Amino acid sequence: MRKLENIPFEQLTIGAQASLTRTLTEEDLLLFAKVSGDTNPVHLDETFASTTQFAGRIAHGMWTASLISCALATKLPGPGGIYLGQELKFMRPVKVGDTVTVELEIIEINQRRKRATVVTNVINQHGKTVVKGQAEVMPATDKVIVDEYPLPEVLLKPAS
Amino acid sequence: MRKLENIPFEQLTIGAQASLTRTLTEEDLLLFAKVSGDTNPVHLDETFASTTQFAGRIAHGMWTASLISCALATKLPGPGGIYLGQELKFMRPVKVGDTVTVELEIIEINQRRKRATVVTNVINQHGKTVVKGQAEVMPATDKVIVDEYPLPEVLLKPAS
Repeated sequence: MRKLENIPFEQLTIGAQASLTRTLTEEDLLLFAKVSGDTNPVHLDETFASTTQFAGRIAHGMWTASLISCALATKLPGPGGIYLGQELKFMRPVKVGDTVTVELEIIEINQRRKRATVVTNVINQHGKTVVKGQAEVMPATDKVIVDEYPLPEVLLKPAS
Repeated sequence: MRKLENIPFEQLTIGAQASLTRTLTEEDLLLFAKVSGDTNPVHLDETFASTTQFAGRIAHGMWTASLISCALATKLPGPGGIYLGQELKFMRPVKVGDTVTVELEIIEINQRRKRATVVTNVINQHGKTVVKGQAEVMPATDKVIVDEYPLPEVLLKPAS
């Protein structure tokens, strides 16, 4: 089983980086609508979405943000940390087939409060920023190594 | 088919409110892990999660944030708007069976830039704040009425 491993607070350094890359699928769009309840057709209905300024369906901005959260929870600082806050600026749309990369970098460490500030930008396959932001986290002080939880298979059945 | 309807920019007023309530299910937790890729066992493995300070599995903070996004996209200001930014502070955990309510309130309207600032707090069934924050949106200037996109049924099959 694959393991997730953290960087304990004392080992974090300013400038430490991590990244995570993912390509948006059709299924991701539908699943995110389901799990958030967001039925806005700009995300789901190609005919409608093609009439908007985006000229086609776009991802829910919070899907892209969920990748930031995933990168923080699994890579930097990793498991055992506590997610305190996040600022997000949605700069450009993400579409099915786009490949986005979350880029994390530690920019501030508060020794007294045991917290860190992380720049959390997301870049698309053309090198353009789609989300800008930063997170505040409280990394675990101990070393944490855990089994990565196996994800279920998902079958989607169109609404009847 | 149910419709989604916006409040056009010119009709927005300071103090306008909307809310959205949802109860976290087991399936929501698994789906959010799948769609975000966040396999951290604090969200998924009861045995592991019971050893943490949370004493059990907790929702991904971004799931709760996705409900904020849903409320903005479907209720206030509703379809046709553009989501520009979001600030989030994660205050308390959300667990399976918890019922959370997103409370939106317009606190600022920028006539020149056609933007609005919305307080976006999320409260649990005990009246405690689980997420505090605010959003910046660019509401549509026209009236928009769209069909709500029908959500698929989802079947989950445990990882083999």
